[in-house]
Amino acid sequence: MKVYMDNNATTMTSPEVVEQMVPFFSEIYGNPNSLHKFGTQSRPALSRAIDQVYKAINASDKDDIVFTSCATESNNWVLQSVWIDKIVNGDKNHIVTTEVEHPSVLSTCKFLEEQGVKVTYLPVNEEGIVEAHTVKSFITEKTALVSIMWANNETGMIFPIKEIGEICKAKGVLFHTDGVQAVGKIPVDMQDVHVDFMSMSAHKFHGPKGIGALYIKDSQELTPMMHGGSQMGGRRSGTLNVPYIIGMGKAIEMATENIEEKMASISAKRNRLEDALLKVIPETFTVGKREHRTPNTILISIRGVEGEGMLWDLNKFDIGASTGSACASEDLEANTVMLAIGADHELAHTGIRLSLSRYTSDEEVDYVIEHFTEAVTRLRAISSSYAIVKPTKGGEAAECHIPAHH
Amino acid sequence: MKVYMDNNATTMTSPEVVEQMVPFFSEIYGNPNSLHKFGTQSRPALSRAIDQVYKAINASDKDDIVFTSCATESNNWVLQSVWIDKIVNGDKNHIVTTEVEHPSVLSTCKFLEEQGVKVTYLPVNEEGIVEAHTVKSFITEKTALVSIMWANNETGMIFPIKEIGEICKAKGVLFHTDGVQAVGKIPVDMQDVHVDFMSMSAHKFHGPKGIGALYIKDSQELTPMMHGGSQMGGRRSGTLNVPYIIGMGKAIEMATENIEEKMASISAKRNRLEDALLKVIPETFTVGKREHRTPNTILISIRGVEGEGMLWDLNKFDIGASTGSACASEDLEANTVMLAIGADHELAHTGIRLSLSRYTSDEEVDYVIEHFTEAVTRLRAISSSYAIVKPTKGGEAAECHIPAHH
Repeated sequence: MKVYMDNNATTMTSPEVVEQMVPFFSEIYGNPNSLHKFGTQSRPALSRAIDQVYKAINASDKDDIVFTSCATESNNWVLQSVWIDKIVNGDKNHIVTTEVEHPSVLSTCKFLEEQGVKVTYLPVNEEGIVEAHTVKSFITEKTALVSIMWANNETGMIFPIKEIGEICKAKGVLFHTDGVQAVGKIPVDMQDVHVDFMSMSAHKFHGPKGIGALYIKDSQELTPMMHGGSQMGGRRSGTLNVPYIIGMGKAIEMATENIEEKMASISAKRNRLEDALLKVIPETFTVGKREHRTPNTILISIRGVEGEGMLWDLNKFDIGASTGSACASEDLEANTVMLAIGADHELAHTGIRLSLSRYTSDEEVDYVIEHFTEAVTRLRAISSSYAIVKPTKGGEAAECHIPAHH
Repeated sequence: MKVYMDNNATTMTSPEVVEQMVPFFSEIYGNPNSLHKFGTQSRPALSRAIDQVYKAINASDKDDIVFTSCATESNNWVLQSVWIDKIVNGDKNHIVTTEVEHPSVLSTCKFLEEQGVKVTYLPVNEEGIVEAHTVKSFITEKTALVSIMWANNETGMIFPIKEIGEICKAKGVLFHTDGVQAVGKIPVDMQDVHVDFMSMSAHKFHGPKGIGALYIKDSQELTPMMHGGSQMGGRRSGTLNVPYIIGMGKAIEMATENIEEKMASISAKRNRLEDALLKVIPETFTVGKREHRTPNTILISIRGVEGEGMLWDLNKFDIGASTGSACASEDLEANTVMLAIGADHELAHTGIRLSLSRYTSDEEVDYVIEHFTEAVTRLRAISSSYAIVKPTKGGEAAECHIPAHH
């Protein structure tokens, strides 16, 4: 059996999505901006895809949804263009974000700091959440933008976007949210929140890798990042990626229709898996309350078991998991979110993220419970940190002394 | 019969390319940066694709080839990052380009002008070529970058990239070329020219829309435009678009192997079509000497026949063509390249671009000759400009008076 539990990194493209895309490679291949049939015949499918995205996030007709090549582009676009519009060509100089954003936000902020922008990186509380009142206290009259993710990629923690949006609205500050881990996993209603810009990525909800979007409230101004042939009303130039736009439309429709039912089904499997691992394996904890998390995510720490070693053992059993950040999992670094929530450095190296999808089966959950436990037993037996501690207490693994947690 | 002759706008994705891509949607779908098999199993195919691109343009091992979402991104990246690196954070303030670049270069230059950058837009000569000595005369000690396309999208004219590269090298100025209309159509050898940066686009050579690349000589520094998860050695972040990278590799390999044979075959068809149209239809001319053009392109002007009207007539016959620029063909404006080469405004509205591919058959050429001629006859019969002139001469269409050409 092969079990993929790394759906926060990327997902399988649904066969139904591929089926929708394939005719637009070699059969209907014209440039949709052309005047001839080869181009215009793709327009109905493109219109449907755009409608599917609008409907999925309940955007209003006044809003813009612009397709991009990925959420990294959407995030870079907002941050860099607000920099140009409000800081280079305006009187602002400050951006508020968090310590636990995706690298595409954090690295762009580092770049902007090199250009002289002041950036405040807000901490998360012990549960891994950025609290709305914290955001409020750091907004100044020089703040151009608040950029805070809707849900965290490593922990699944859902942030108080509605409250933060109200604060930004009251303060007259632009608000961007990276919605990558929220859209398709939990209900996202753009008419229920005050968000100026929201980034999305198709490959997080069973669409293809290489297509994303940016929601722009009330079609407000934002300098383009891609200048050129004026596609998408001049907001994002470049020949339209027709197959992937159509695929993203289908994927977001499939992910969001009857989303409460899907959430219930996924979280039932997630909870069964989490309960079993916490019960069977001593000295293990998971990050964040379940009701504050996206329904598919577990970030679990196993004292004495280094995350990378665990990944390799799981890999031998054909189980795909991650130590945390989707993008940078080749870097053998401590989990930054775990450090942010106050884990000590040793513990921050033990995080394993298991992220399920609507394609995860009960049999797969059973398989993971069995082999995850097996891997922990093996690795704890050879763990230097765990072994050193164990004899001093003379007890079972379950009773090991835990090094001071600061 | 349906005949697609708009291959400079976009091309059919080759079935062989689609076949290579499809398994990487729903079967091999992991993030290649992951440590588990679901991700790592895509790496051999990715490596092969990268090798295929290196080989196709004869890049050296010291060079970088970075995949982007399209050539619009590649062009924006070079221009905007040279602006940041050499102008905002340096002592340069000037960019040299041409009047006939793709909109993704021209619009980015307009944006940079708004940010205070000086831009020189070089004219083309009567044949539609930018001459190397013209470039030389406009480079100053403040010039940060020269950006000149390898081949023009509307006329197919090939620019003297080797000579311009030598000039830039001698002057110590960075040289970027938009290679979109050259790669896959004519031999492109990066070890034969001095080019710092070259943009490429897969959908111009029967790869998918939504993937491009940037060649970076000697892996030199260039601030990223997409900051984030450090994919592609940190040069372009964002989850890799695995299927399209693999597709681009296959497509560039297919387009460039035995390229001289392919060129000979395509140009034979192009020449037969061009000869026939010039012979049968009076008062018609084509832009540029054939030996200076990419082998697939004809830009033809028919006195008295407005380009858009002609497109509609061709469309009725299921022939796909263009009035010129691929991206903006919805804009009913005069052809900018024709204006640049000195056509009067009326004539600049009569340009029709026919662009063939290696999939164009002899039967398709015959079909276009027949129906193109038919459409011209019909449209000239109802043309106001043509009709007004005709009676004063009392002659046949072939003898019509031509308004002054300045």
